[in-house]
Amino acid sequence: MDSRQEQIQGRTTMSEHAAVDQEASNARRGRGASGGAAARRAARSGGGPGTQLTYIKRKINVYEVLDEEGLALIEKNTDTVLEEIGIIFRDDAEALQLWKEAGADIKGERVHFPKGLCRSLLKTAPSVYTQHARNSERSVQIGGNATVFAPVYGPPFVRDLDGVRRYATIEDFQNFVKLAYMAPSIHHSGGTVCEPVDVPVNKRHLDMIYSHIKYSDKPFMGSVTAPERAEDTVAMAKIVFGDDFVENNTVLTSLINANSPMVFDETMLGALKVYARHNQACIVTPFILAGAMSPVTVAGTLTQVLAEVLAGASFTQLIRPGAPVLFGTFASSISMQSGAPTFGTPEPSLVSYGAAQLARRLGLPFRTGGSLCASKVPDAQAAYESANTLNSTILAGTNFVLHSAGWLEGGLASCYEKFMMDIDQLGMTQKFSEGVDLSENGQAMDAIRQVGPGSHYLGCDHTQANFQTAFYRSNIADNNSYEQWLAEGEKTAPQRANDLARRWLESYEAPYLDPSIDEALKDFIAKKKGSMPDAFT
Amino acid sequence: MDSRQEQIQGRTTMSEHAAVDQEASNARRGRGASGGAAARRAARSGGGPGTQLTYIKRKINVYEVLDEEGLALIEKNTDTVLEEIGIIFRDDAEALQLWKEAGADIKGERVHFPKGLCRSLLKTAPSVYTQHARNSERSVQIGGNATVFAPVYGPPFVRDLDGVRRYATIEDFQNFVKLAYMAPSIHHSGGTVCEPVDVPVNKRHLDMIYSHIKYSDKPFMGSVTAPERAEDTVAMAKIVFGDDFVENNTVLTSLINANSPMVFDETMLGALKVYARHNQACIVTPFILAGAMSPVTVAGTLTQVLAEVLAGASFTQLIRPGAPVLFGTFASSISMQSGAPTFGTPEPSLVSYGAAQLARRLGLPFRTGGSLCASKVPDAQAAYESANTLNSTILAGTNFVLHSAGWLEGGLASCYEKFMMDIDQLGMTQKFSEGVDLSENGQAMDAIRQVGPGSHYLGCDHTQANFQTAFYRSNIADNNSYEQWLAEGEKTAPQRANDLARRWLESYEAPYLDPSIDEALKDFIAKKKGSMPDAFT
Repeated sequence: MDSRQEQIQGRTTMSEHAAVDQEASNARRGRGASGGAAARRAARSGGGPGTQLTYIKRKINVYEVLDEEGLALIEKNTDTVLEEIGIIFRDDAEALQLWKEAGADIKGERVHFPKGLCRSLLKTAPSVYTQHARNSERSVQIGGNATVFAPVYGPPFVRDLDGVRRYATIEDFQNFVKLAYMAPSIHHSGGTVCEPVDVPVNKRHLDMIYSHIKYSDKPFMGSVTAPERAEDTVAMAKIVFGDDFVENNTVLTSLINANSPMVFDETMLGALKVYARHNQACIVTPFILAGAMSPVTVAGTLTQVLAEVLAGASFTQLIRPGAPVLFGTFASSISMQSGAPTFGTPEPSLVSYGAAQLARRLGLPFRTGGSLCASKVPDAQAAYESANTLNSTILAGTNFVLHSAGWLEGGLASCYEKFMMDIDQLGMTQKFSEGVDLSENGQAMDAIRQVGPGSHYLGCDHTQANFQTAFYRSNIADNNSYEQWLAEGEKTAPQRANDLARRWLESYEAPYLDPSIDEALKDFIAKKKGSMPDAFT
Repeated sequence: MDSRQEQIQGRTTMSEHAAVDQEASNARRGRGASGGAAARRAARSGGGPGTQLTYIKRKINVYEVLDEEGLALIEKNTDTVLEEIGIIFRDDAEALQLWKEAGADIKGERVHFPKGLCRSLLKTAPSVYTQHARNSERSVQIGGNATVFAPVYGPPFVRDLDGVRRYATIEDFQNFVKLAYMAPSIHHSGGTVCEPVDVPVNKRHLDMIYSHIKYSDKPFMGSVTAPERAEDTVAMAKIVFGDDFVENNTVLTSLINANSPMVFDETMLGALKVYARHNQACIVTPFILAGAMSPVTVAGTLTQVLAEVLAGASFTQLIRPGAPVLFGTFASSISMQSGAPTFGTPEPSLVSYGAAQLARRLGLPFRTGGSLCASKVPDAQAAYESANTLNSTILAGTNFVLHSAGWLEGGLASCYEKFMMDIDQLGMTQKFSEGVDLSENGQAMDAIRQVGPGSHYLGCDHTQANFQTAFYRSNIADNNSYEQWLAEGEKTAPQRANDLARRWLESYEAPYLDPSIDEALKDFIAKKKGSMPDAFT
């Protein structure tokens, strides 16, 4: 508790410091100009990132795999699980006390929920919220028809630009933050884009949060590996945004995994409580390898997922009614031969689609999917699996997409080349989400009349007027002739992605950060680090 | 006309011959045993193809991108195109005469259609038909909730198992037929799986049709490169199935491309007339590279596609009311930099979804999509693009899927490795199409009760009872640990696909074909070939 108190003290000091700059900081939030300049320069040098896109506002329909009867059946079964089997809240006396007061039946650490309790609590959770970025142009809507793409989360390894697979470092971490900052189709800086294994594990979160703030102006995620690290995250956010702003708004969206099946552990509950108390968003996510952490069937998995989310998400409302919380689902299956997780296969897609439907009925923003794969290299397997996952992610109507880019090896490695290929796919997804333009220009009747039978549209007025925006332009795909491709060195997609990543990193320029905020952040980190011995486990 | 008469004579002779064997042949159609034996032996030797799947009976919803208003708008615009702009039927006096008699307004070669004429004619076209295979277990339903996968069609090149890109040969053709025969998730042998460039162009179709009959027992497509080649196809089908059977059933589904924009040429019309007259199915397909053959917008492209399909498909009903005809769409865009076709991008997906909706409203079976890509090698680009195309293909509710496997280089090359990777994806698609199992076993409540919080499902009764069928098993994906993957030689997906293709081809065994039918086919081919000089252009 001593370190907590110290943190809270430190936070207060820092917050006062930050308050001085808040007005200026707020004014700056409209800028984003330096990012634009870097983008423009990179674009001029060829293969630059291009114009930043705001989060996706889907104009397309969602795809659904369950009808009303199926949804009602799963919800009924979920009520049975919650009431009869219950969910363990492990090593957290406060949580058990809160649940008791709320009317749950506590047996040991197992919480049994009377029918309707969780749903009733969730009525105070918002279906849509804004996560503010320090550049207000990069603030994102989470929920409703919005989709937000965030990078890969969690890998201890990287596959680097020399094709070497090794432990990740803080430099890699910063590189991925930089690439995500530059990527037009990445709307969110994410969290642990890779584990900076060269930094002591108890201090790592400070450098990670600082990197997100320093090297990007997109919104980011908080540390969840210990409650005090969550507190540090909130404290650093207050330096940037100011105390009041943080308490009254949401500037962090953080990942709270259930320990499936049907357990929330003290680490995750501790982080959840910190974020919820400060009005910051939690993504309550059953991390499911079906066949191991859930039943081998889709309907069985959905039942357990819904039970875990109902318990964990409604717990945030016991902490602070109105705190944003997402319905998360990480869906994978295991190989029945080896027990290894598999990705991009049919069953997790069905789980994602079904879970999205359950989330909509609950009125919570939904997180699933990304560009998931089991491949060890950015090859065809990686791409098939990632594309399958991403297609179901977007059509499910997912609101927050972690692991959108860079994920390799079932999440064990962050891969630069795959990151660049994936963001190209995200751009396509964003274009697809605009749906069909039915305006007069979209109908193109004048073009059809002008061209007529047996001619071509290449030079017609309508084509000339629309060719800049008509089709998505990939910066990875090679659509040239075989002969031209040969002449250009027979490069594969990952090789082209490698070239692009190098060019982007060379042309990167950090977005403006008020020097006094930067200093305050550095002071905070120095003090925190000075108070702790190095720990590597 | 001489060669036509000769053909017809030849056909009659052969048909009589065939009639003798018809009863036996019909009896045999229930077998498929030899294929099963080969599959079982290959399976025993490891990595074999496994059990043949029947065509997909989709239990999942279709995905739609247009609402009623959008559909009605496009249909209205289409009526305008058909009436005011018209469609050219080139160098085909018979077609123009038929259209005149049907009530169209003919100006030169341009046919202007009074509102409602095409739709009215299409009332006789079936919304669902059966394409019979010589093994009745392999017969397919085309239309309704069925989806049928057929291989790549048309490439003059192959990328072979030694990684060499070269002109295709008849041996390659046979290899792809063999692989498609063995592939559980390929339901149809297709047509020009590659162009056997080593066979004279005027004789090639005979060897191709023979290969489909000899090396597979799945349904196949007919030649469309000249009306007399279509006649040869029908004649050979009659040898296999008998005259009456062919005239009263459908044993061929063949590809009739529009010469977009808004032209049908004499070659395609000639083939269409042959097939329709014999009650054989035509896939009337606007082959669209949007921006060149159609407007750059999705709605404009859909309008033109619908106009071309309405004109071409309804023409089949002028030839023979009731002849099966499909609403085809080949959707691609062009790169606005190079003019090269691009695949797997958002706009063609929107076109496919929209066209599928228009086809359903018209009551015609629908063809689009496949595993399309522009990549020159089976790399990540190939896989992303193919997966994007295949995902939209299946969710659109496509009934017949050409280019399902093996397509590379925008259709210029058939690739063995990609074929093997694609069929794995098709298998996943088929599993996905089964949707969510909501049976008591699917609900898995006993499993959730048995396992409870904090345990795992690996050994529970429900997992044991279901693990064989619970999850799709890929024979291409490597889901093992990085260390195991290293130890096994760091193979990429195409390398594993290469191994698999070699093993399959080694273990291939032809399905049973009645020797007298085989002889009759060979005689027919020898006579036809003897009547023609070699032509290579």
